[in-house]
Amino acid sequence: MASPGTRRLNGSPVAGRAVASLFAARAEDYTPSPIRAIFDLPLGPDDISLAGGNPDLSGLPWPELARLTDRILLDHGEEALQYGATTGRLSLARAIVGEVMAAEGIEADPRELIVTSGSQMSLNLIAGLFLDPGDTVLTELPTYVGALHAFAGFQATVRQLPRDTEGVRVDALVAAIRAAADGGGRAKLLYVIPNFGNPTGMSMSEARRREVAQICVAEGLLIVEDDPYGLIRFAGQRAESLRMMAPEIVIHLGSMSKIFSPGLRVGWADAPAAVHERLVLAAESVTICPSVLGQFLAEAFLRELDWRAIVGAQVQRYRSRAGALMAGLERAMPEGVSWTRPEGGFFTWLSLPDGVDSAELMGRGIERGVLFVPGAAFHVDPAEGRSHLRLSFSSASEERLGEAARRLGALIAG
Amino acid sequence: MASPGTRRLNGSPVAGRAVASLFAARAEDYTPSPIRAIFDLPLGPDDISLAGGNPDLSGLPWPELARLTDRILLDHGEEALQYGATTGRLSLARAIVGEVMAAEGIEADPRELIVTSGSQMSLNLIAGLFLDPGDTVLTELPTYVGALHAFAGFQATVRQLPRDTEGVRVDALVAAIRAAADGGGRAKLLYVIPNFGNPTGMSMSEARRREVAQICVAEGLLIVEDDPYGLIRFAGQRAESLRMMAPEIVIHLGSMSKIFSPGLRVGWADAPAAVHERLVLAAESVTICPSVLGQFLAEAFLRELDWRAIVGAQVQRYRSRAGALMAGLERAMPEGVSWTRPEGGFFTWLSLPDGVDSAELMGRGIERGVLFVPGAAFHVDPAEGRSHLRLSFSSASEERLGEAARRLGALIAG
Repeated sequence: MASPGTRRLNGSPVAGRAVASLFAARAEDYTPSPIRAIFDLPLGPDDISLAGGNPDLSGLPWPELARLTDRILLDHGEEALQYGATTGRLSLARAIVGEVMAAEGIEADPRELIVTSGSQMSLNLIAGLFLDPGDTVLTELPTYVGALHAFAGFQATVRQLPRDTEGVRVDALVAAIRAAADGGGRAKLLYVIPNFGNPTGMSMSEARRREVAQICVAEGLLIVEDDPYGLIRFAGQRAESLRMMAPEIVIHLGSMSKIFSPGLRVGWADAPAAVHERLVLAAESVTICPSVLGQFLAEAFLRELDWRAIVGAQVQRYRSRAGALMAGLERAMPEGVSWTRPEGGFFTWLSLPDGVDSAELMGRGIERGVLFVPGAAFHVDPAEGRSHLRLSFSSASEERLGEAARRLGALIAG
Repeated sequence: MASPGTRRLNGSPVAGRAVASLFAARAEDYTPSPIRAIFDLPLGPDDISLAGGNPDLSGLPWPELARLTDRILLDHGEEALQYGATTGRLSLARAIVGEVMAAEGIEADPRELIVTSGSQMSLNLIAGLFLDPGDTVLTELPTYVGALHAFAGFQATVRQLPRDTEGVRVDALVAAIRAAADGGGRAKLLYVIPNFGNPTGMSMSEARRREVAQICVAEGLLIVEDDPYGLIRFAGQRAESLRMMAPEIVIHLGSMSKIFSPGLRVGWADAPAAVHERLVLAAESVTICPSVLGQFLAEAFLRELDWRAIVGAQVQRYRSRAGALMAGLERAMPEGVSWTRPEGGFFTWLSLPDGVDSAELMGRGIERGVLFVPGAAFHVDPAEGRSHLRLSFSSASEERLGEAARRLGALIAG
């Protein structure tokens, strides 16, 4: 209970002023995520949200997962609920390397992996490790909003590079590196999602990866290869990972979030040795260790279950949904609308006719029961995103995806 | 597989130089934790480590925990393994407020809590939110090594305040605030562990808390009240929390780590509204959300089990062990050694005779099968810690605690 003396302290006008004046300069760049704001909207049963990037967990083998968790708690409980290594469990790193990374054709040394509390944390660690205020980070245009926030949180300057059908344009990459140097700064990182990127669903060709890797080696940039969607492939051939092309300058990020569970918060970073060492130090200071129970369950998923069959079935579901959305868009979109046709991942990126603003469209979409993410979220300059929006096909049923396309078409037609 | 072209890229001498030159200035302050290094030492069955701060989990009701986890996965699996709210689950916040904080006599609004991936992450978020390079943070002398690392990671200047029997000395607090201002800087935060602190085991008296809160209100400092050990009390009366004394300037940190499980990574911060808002934005950028499965299990522990009885039994065990260590030290320590007599928590802090160096003692301790943490870890100036060391009584049996004291006494005696 507060004493009278306490209440006097609380009421001090000095205190309110003091707190407001205490924030660090970087806290000015802590901005709300527009995607999270959309998540917070109350949805009725008839509303259809294509806004989220949630995996569909309905196909997971729940009784087997419960049995595995029983076994973990009864046989290894004192280890699974105790503090763990900052690098993560080596046995999980072995399972990741031997199962997930092998399935993507990536060779790695489990001792060079750090398990993190998800790839967002990997991005935060990398941003903290490399970015002084004013340093330049290069990304695709558009790119993942969480990466933009991680870089902004360390006061970096982000330059977004336009892409062509093969990936980021190399002329734009070279020009941005030069521009940073001419401005007295330095481009330190190139951040890319080479497989089925967020928000476009588009990938980078193997030839373009090789060109980009060569440029970054020559220019002294690190590449952050963010790859949560690599195994969510519907069509086409796998391209070699950047990490395999240029291991000395590439940090590869992977995650359990899209192939198993985001709620466990288990991701990993495979990095050059000098980077790995410092990532571990940074990680200790941020969270001590990732959830140990989550790591046990992730390892059991990879070792004890037929995880390839589970993910294979998920991929079939996502493929059918992507097809349903594509068919719905074909039927419903008016003249002047175009969209990407992804061969994997969770998203398609829609370009609006001149004069249609995605933020304004969003307001009307909420009224008409169709939700999406306006393009501004994925751009440093929000004005650049106005003529685009992101649709997710990962969560809604085929029928609802078709209906969402119909509603959206009617909205755009006006 | 790497192509010949790839191998040429890997071998580029430019790449190695480039990575080394890319680290941010703050990365210079990412230093290895001496405690973690001690954890990594291989222990034989006869070695006794009093180095760690691990809770004893042997008394947890494993079959009940397995049953609760079954229920979570079978009835709420799609929610427990999915992305969650950045603030954490409101139902868990309600359980924390209604159970844990209530048991400590703290009133809070669950909507003003943010659940984090443990208190280390709370510290990282707070450091990022408030500390510009060169800003001053005040702490106790000595203090928690993880807090020192979190502050150093944002290039803050840490000043450690000597304590007397009641807590940090107010003359030193006022002098340090003045000194920061005189140096053209600013003291922004006071970090304290008011209950059974790490590493000393000592607490702050209620009168001292009130004095300190008054000074911080008047001077415009925020107080970070780190309270993982508050419920691990063997003796004495609870003192009012700083958060209750001056809610407008106090961020209270709590954790499941010492009362249930550190491996779940579930902690929380109860902060003034203006701070809470920004903490949520920062947290989203760092990890999106805490482990959702971990939150479900933490809530089940508080709601479905007789958690007060479980913690009560743990406290009895820690009390007996503390007693065994105190008795062992009484028997074994040579002239000139003194130590704290904590009324709770996990640690005692030992002061060595002139001429005995705790780092040097550690080297001999490893050979003789007794491990502890040399005092330097808890000091900004490592030289200050040489005549001290931290002993933990949370993990070892009473018999082994006595034997550890015997070995340590022999070592010190020379």
